[in-house]
Amino acid sequence: MSVTAAQGFTAAGIAAGIKANGNPDLALVVNHGPRLAAAGVFTSNRVKAAPVHWSEQVLRGGAVGAVVLNSGGANACTGPKGFQDTHATAEKVADVLGADFNAGEIAVASTGLIGVLLPMDKLLPGIETAAAALSADGGEAAAIAIKTTDTVHKTATASVGGWTVGGMAKGAGMLAPGLATMLVVLTTDADVDGATLDKALRSATRTTFDRVDSDGCMSTNDTVLLLASGASGVVPAYAEFAEAVRSVCDDLARQLIGDAEGASKDIRIEVVGAASEDDAVEVGRSIARNNLLKCAIHGEDPNWGRVLSAIGTTRAAFDPDRLNVAINGVWVCKNGSVGEDRDLVSMKDREVRITADLATGTESAVIWANDLTAEYVHENSAYSS
Amino acid sequence: MSVTAAQGFTAAGIAAGIKANGNPDLALVVNHGPRLAAAGVFTSNRVKAAPVHWSEQVLRGGAVGAVVLNSGGANACTGPKGFQDTHATAEKVADVLGADFNAGEIAVASTGLIGVLLPMDKLLPGIETAAAALSADGGEAAAIAIKTTDTVHKTATASVGGWTVGGMAKGAGMLAPGLATMLVVLTTDADVDGATLDKALRSATRTTFDRVDSDGCMSTNDTVLLLASGASGVVPAYAEFAEAVRSVCDDLARQLIGDAEGASKDIRIEVVGAASEDDAVEVGRSIARNNLLKCAIHGEDPNWGRVLSAIGTTRAAFDPDRLNVAINGVWVCKNGSVGEDRDLVSMKDREVRITADLATGTESAVIWANDLTAEYVHENSAYSS
Repeated sequence: MSVTAAQGFTAAGIAAGIKANGNPDLALVVNHGPRLAAAGVFTSNRVKAAPVHWSEQVLRGGAVGAVVLNSGGANACTGPKGFQDTHATAEKVADVLGADFNAGEIAVASTGLIGVLLPMDKLLPGIETAAAALSADGGEAAAIAIKTTDTVHKTATASVGGWTVGGMAKGAGMLAPGLATMLVVLTTDADVDGATLDKALRSATRTTFDRVDSDGCMSTNDTVLLLASGASGVVPAYAEFAEAVRSVCDDLARQLIGDAEGASKDIRIEVVGAASEDDAVEVGRSIARNNLLKCAIHGEDPNWGRVLSAIGTTRAAFDPDRLNVAINGVWVCKNGSVGEDRDLVSMKDREVRITADLATGTESAVIWANDLTAEYVHENSAYSS
Repeated sequence: MSVTAAQGFTAAGIAAGIKANGNPDLALVVNHGPRLAAAGVFTSNRVKAAPVHWSEQVLRGGAVGAVVLNSGGANACTGPKGFQDTHATAEKVADVLGADFNAGEIAVASTGLIGVLLPMDKLLPGIETAAAALSADGGEAAAIAIKTTDTVHKTATASVGGWTVGGMAKGAGMLAPGLATMLVVLTTDADVDGATLDKALRSATRTTFDRVDSDGCMSTNDTVLLLASGASGVVPAYAEFAEAVRSVCDDLARQLIGDAEGASKDIRIEVVGAASEDDAVEVGRSIARNNLLKCAIHGEDPNWGRVLSAIGTTRAAFDPDRLNVAINGVWVCKNGSVGEDRDLVSMKDREVRITADLATGTESAVIWANDLTAEYVHENSAYSS
């Protein structure tokens, strides 16, 4: 049920004509309160899209009444005109939603090709259409409207003790920590203030979206928002609420990896025996980004030497002669050298599990990645995206 | 003329049966003096192959009488037995070359699949065959014997004022700074001591092999050796000698990029206007490793947004709103936004030039990279390498 699973929210997704092919490309999510609490995390790319700059400011204000999202154009690297367009988009949403909303409470998110101005002559009328289509079961349509190269729309929900966290996500390429090319909107009817939302959201994204690495490329537009309406009237225990937010983020992150551009394998990289969690994450990301290993996994080749060569490029604490690597449970590398027979490894399933044991400490981390395929090359070379 | 262009060297390349397909796989280069001066640089990967550990020790001794190189197996991640095999290889070379040589003066280099022991029953007899084939025009055969997935062998020579620097290189994948998957042997008959060789070699590799980034993957086996026989009797001026070494390294590095696995484009990335050379190199490498950009260039799509998103992931000094990017001379991005018409960019040629202007300072650097193609994926997924 996506962003309308929680009480107090309406949503819509429509085709405004931003995409040349006529597919849905504009989504609107509205918080009807009583609370308008919100939190957000954004890309750590220093080249940020206009809507990211805008929404960061909106979040500082503390209240988010609505989120408008478009696919079909990232509005990144578009200069002052791009920022004016984002501003005009927020003003238009505030106008059509009526007296209860002002532009400073409207978050904006965009996704699509970088370096192209949005067709405002289509986007602004589209906002009127979307506002007219708002409904308490519009979450699905909104999730569909934010797709770019996604083959399926992504939603997740967790319901606990009278309150709900629901969400939608898009993202299929340019997926790398900090964050990925993703737009995510989460909503909840739990009665939670902004500071608590912020804490729960940062804690959740740190171990979910931030540990997804499809292709090592960090986007200019990543936005993850969490809005609370308080409509359930229930004030949840923090731990319970944080876990619900984490579980929805984890579910959506896993769906992003499962639908990554051209991928034929989902790779679960677990680094164990690390001296610190930072070491485990650094090693996991290095493995996740090794093109040669990603190709080998595509070819169902348990080429553990490429895992070791990736580990060797990091600054993590380890002794090369004590490293162990398992692929799908077979310890093909022991003590930095040949281990169990690699022919014992079956890699037929879509999910491939790599375990890298640094044999140094007790910390661990899991990173999800994809294989590298000819289809990925085709999707990203045959046309601009 | 490769490693035998300089006086005082003989070389050979033969098929020892290490490669299953019967292609040449063993090369020997011998320095007949009067000097046995040498310098070397090795991979900065912390997971190092046995021959790298061995040859680093040999270099510390200061004298290198011969280099034995094999393709068909990297002897990396092979534990104590792998190191024993490298030691035995050096002992065998010293034995067959006679009383003037000892094992501690024999450098060893290997390339091929990681995690597999070398077939010593073939390698050791191969050394006898290679020694018998040594000749003053064996440089070409040696260059051929070190190929792995290289489609052509690579040699270069510079002759200046009575002395010569010549060399051979292999490398087609796992090419990334620090160094790439490359084996390089350079020889000179200039009369130069070890310290001078070391200075000239480090200076040369810093701006040549270390600025080649085919696929972002750093190898366990990279070795670049420079041997001096002094046979010309000429002591060159340092600047002249360093420039000759640099020009041969540059030529070989360019050949590596031109023959990278599956590549259809050679990408020259020049970062200008940087606050420091380190900033320029960091930005250049980030652009060089962006898979989405590499795909776009394969598709002849001047997708400058992907250049900006790559720059944005670095710590270099820049203002996103002042960045400029040219592709093949057309400034498609100005001041962080849309610049000249991208339709003016022609990308038909194999060489593609990207200029990224950080508009912050006066430093610059050039990094060479390749596009990402379905052929790269095929070469690295269809079989173990």
